[in-house]
Amino acid sequence: MHEYPRPMVTVDVVIFTLRENDLQVLLVRRRNPPFAGMWAIPGGFVDIDEPLEAAARRELEEETGVRDVHLEQFHTFGDPGRDPRGRTITVAYLALVRADQVRPRAGDDAAEAGWWSMRALPPLAFDHDRILACALEHLRQRLKCFAVPPGLLPDTFTLNELQSVCEAILGEKMDRQTFRRKVLAAGVLQETGGYRRVDGRPAKLYRVRSAR
Amino acid sequence: MHEYPRPMVTVDVVIFTLRENDLQVLLVRRRNPPFAGMWAIPGGFVDIDEPLEAAARRELEEETGVRDVHLEQFHTFGDPGRDPRGRTITVAYLALVRADQVRPRAGDDAAEAGWWSMRALPPLAFDHDRILACALEHLRQRLKCFAVPPGLLPDTFTLNELQSVCEAILGEKMDRQTFRRKVLAAGVLQETGGYRRVDGRPAKLYRVRSAR
Repeated sequence: MHEYPRPMVTVDVVIFTLRENDLQVLLVRRRNPPFAGMWAIPGGFVDIDEPLEAAARRELEEETGVRDVHLEQFHTFGDPGRDPRGRTITVAYLALVRADQVRPRAGDDAAEAGWWSMRALPPLAFDHDRILACALEHLRQRLKCFAVPPGLLPDTFTLNELQSVCEAILGEKMDRQTFRRKVLAAGVLQETGGYRRVDGRPAKLYRVRSAR
Repeated sequence: MHEYPRPMVTVDVVIFTLRENDLQVLLVRRRNPPFAGMWAIPGGFVDIDEPLEAAARRELEEETGVRDVHLEQFHTFGDPGRDPRGRTITVAYLALVRADQVRPRAGDDAAEAGWWSMRALPPLAFDHDRILACALEHLRQRLKCFAVPPGLLPDTFTLNELQSVCEAILGEKMDRQTFRRKVLAAGVLQETGGYRRVDGRPAKLYRVRSAR
């Protein structure tokens, strides 16, 4: 029954952060073939009795030391030919972190781990350029709905801080007044009642309105 | 190299339609074990050299006769134990169709095919109740962004027709004026200039504004 040839199944984890208002991604340099020495998204094979998200967390921690992040599955890539070892289907996850929350270190199959600007990526192993492009597009789509991307901001933040995050993700500057009007109209924020002094002037602090 | 045990990989296709303002899903009755005789989402095994979306289209047509629909991948399910035959990872797709566009007929592994109301589903094979719930949540999330769900409406439509689609998906009635204000403010529609007489009164016709 069903003794067809079976594909290999892997997970990949795209970790984005913001450093000096630049959107950056966590990459690892591969120790082993195929693509040995090339940079890649952290990831690896799913154990036969392991849930997909557990595999993603395990690979991420083994290769980069990063743990305790909110992972969101965003797409599964399975084109024949994407892996020279044979048919491999990869379930891709996405996480947003604050750069000061994680201190990447290489481990296991990774010779090196580090942040790369999305605007100056090295050549990547497999179809990882396509996976990164898809992850970014996924983020951008969500932003068009004014859903505040979780993870990149502290619990309370100013509208300027939120705008910086949005601009880094969208890759474009936005008019300050238009941004404020749209975001506030979307009804996804609530005022905390608190203020932070920015350049000597008080700026209102907001938090994400909790889902009903 | 990598001679670990490999999972099986399948695709499943959730096809939603609107019939008399009720959100319905296309299900097939399984001919073979496991879960023989039970209703399930159309789907099946991915051939070793077949792209994932091609597998989804093939299985959908083989089991239901439905073809030429816009498929969107929405989630991959892979919990150990979800298939009694062994570890099986399924890549799930979603499509929205107009009921008059498809005429389901059973075929291949399906003994029967038909529309079921999302509010009165039969017991389902595998974890297909969870997959359906996830598909519906995916639709609802998108609707919160006022992205008009493609496929359920003709090319031009009235705001009342759009509201019916949204209400069926969200499972709740909405205030007519609030709905209109929100949808128009979202800027996703454009007037066609045309009108349709509804109950003797002219109603403006809209289309989805094309993406930039």
